[in-house]
Amino acid sequence: MEKNKTAPEKRRDGYLTVGIAGGSGSGKTTLTNGLAARFHEKAALLRHDDYYKAHDDLTPEERAALNYDCPEAFDTDLLIEHIKTLRSGKPVESPIYDFTVHNRTDKTRTVNPAPVILVEGILIFADRELADLLDLKIFVETDPDVRLVRRIMRDVKRRERTLESVVEQYLSTVKPMYETYVEPSKKLADIIVPEGARNPAAFEMLADRIDKHIWRSGRFFETHAHGASKNNPIK
Amino acid sequence: MEKNKTAPEKRRDGYLTVGIAGGSGSGKTTLTNGLAARFHEKAALLRHDDYYKAHDDLTPEERAALNYDCPEAFDTDLLIEHIKTLRSGKPVESPIYDFTVHNRTDKTRTVNPAPVILVEGILIFADRELADLLDLKIFVETDPDVRLVRRIMRDVKRRERTLESVVEQYLSTVKPMYETYVEPSKKLADIIVPEGARNPAAFEMLADRIDKHIWRSGRFFETHAHGASKNNPIK
Repeated sequence: MEKNKTAPEKRRDGYLTVGIAGGSGSGKTTLTNGLAARFHEKAALLRHDDYYKAHDDLTPEERAALNYDCPEAFDTDLLIEHIKTLRSGKPVESPIYDFTVHNRTDKTRTVNPAPVILVEGILIFADRELADLLDLKIFVETDPDVRLVRRIMRDVKRRERTLESVVEQYLSTVKPMYETYVEPSKKLADIIVPEGARNPAAFEMLADRIDKHIWRSGRFFETHAHGASKNNPIK
Repeated sequence: MEKNKTAPEKRRDGYLTVGIAGGSGSGKTTLTNGLAARFHEKAALLRHDDYYKAHDDLTPEERAALNYDCPEAFDTDLLIEHIKTLRSGKPVESPIYDFTVHNRTDKTRTVNPAPVILVEGILIFADRELADLLDLKIFVETDPDVRLVRRIMRDVKRRERTLESVVEQYLSTVKPMYETYVEPSKKLADIIVPEGARNPAAFEMLADRIDKHIWRSGRFFETHAHGASKNNPIK
């Protein structure tokens, strides 16, 4: 019965790492972007999707045929290293991935440390070391049919794929990998948000939790002279 | 896709009504009691279980044989009336139910109005009029086997029933009624809390949300001279 829930701020280093997981098309990106926009420079954002492994050794066709929904597709060690670096007060260079060619680009994005670190990804609860770094684990849960519809709309319209390739990928890897890795990892969640993209009540609750942390962390950094802003109460 | 989620404080009358639903043995009572203890006189508590219909016309045997897990078992109209009365700033006399004899007692409990109104019950999301009164809908979700174990322990030890009668009731009404009414009503939830009784991260998030409301409502009541306390920030 004891599920190894994480007590809030158990590390007490002034940082709150919030993990947002859920299936493709669940609305987790909308929820994450909403939180990132609300908290501006008080929140750093890392996306597991940016940490897909580089495959310069493969042809575009070979890369398109890979399974992108299993834990092995990600350079999770690098994401873990980046979370730890942010928590030590230093910036990181987060990779940038190009979904149209299925490969990592040579560009990076500088992410500065902040009292709240948002980590988003389908499989972030499936890696135990990564999950243990997340102080608050949020799972966004949306019906499979709604998720499929969103995925089709996104990949066909924005990522320039054919309907056939999207459906084929969905049935051959997305769905079975969801059932194998994502759904079971929900067991680790502290809270489950139904319909992440259209849920103002849940959004406000998460925002209040983060607000409170930023308020507390302001006092923490002040006391410990960690170099953060001295004016803290966000309200 | 639009699930009629309730925007927070849509009524803007200074009250936040928080509904906590979930199956028998899910941990919702532990969660509710924790919140009630945390917020003392700032939170009023109404339990749907206290609103089981009175059955003075039946024998104890006839009462024991009734189905207590369907919406018709409850005097939900009275609960709705009491929520509205509290929201108008007046106290209510909440009934007291005696589970050992399956009947309402002639005693009542005075519940005073407070900025936060906690409403707990298995089926509170299953009645549309009641659900619409709840600004924040929390569903506590726990595995069926864990819920059964808890129900057995509670009813045998604390409510003096036999193991046989508890199991018979579970299989004949509790389980099918859960699947018919409770599980589908989860669709209305704003947030789902796994393992309500052992989830400190979710508890803190709910507490932060309620804290923020109490802080805001203090300002609301001050502005609108509603008779509430003038000293508000709880922190």
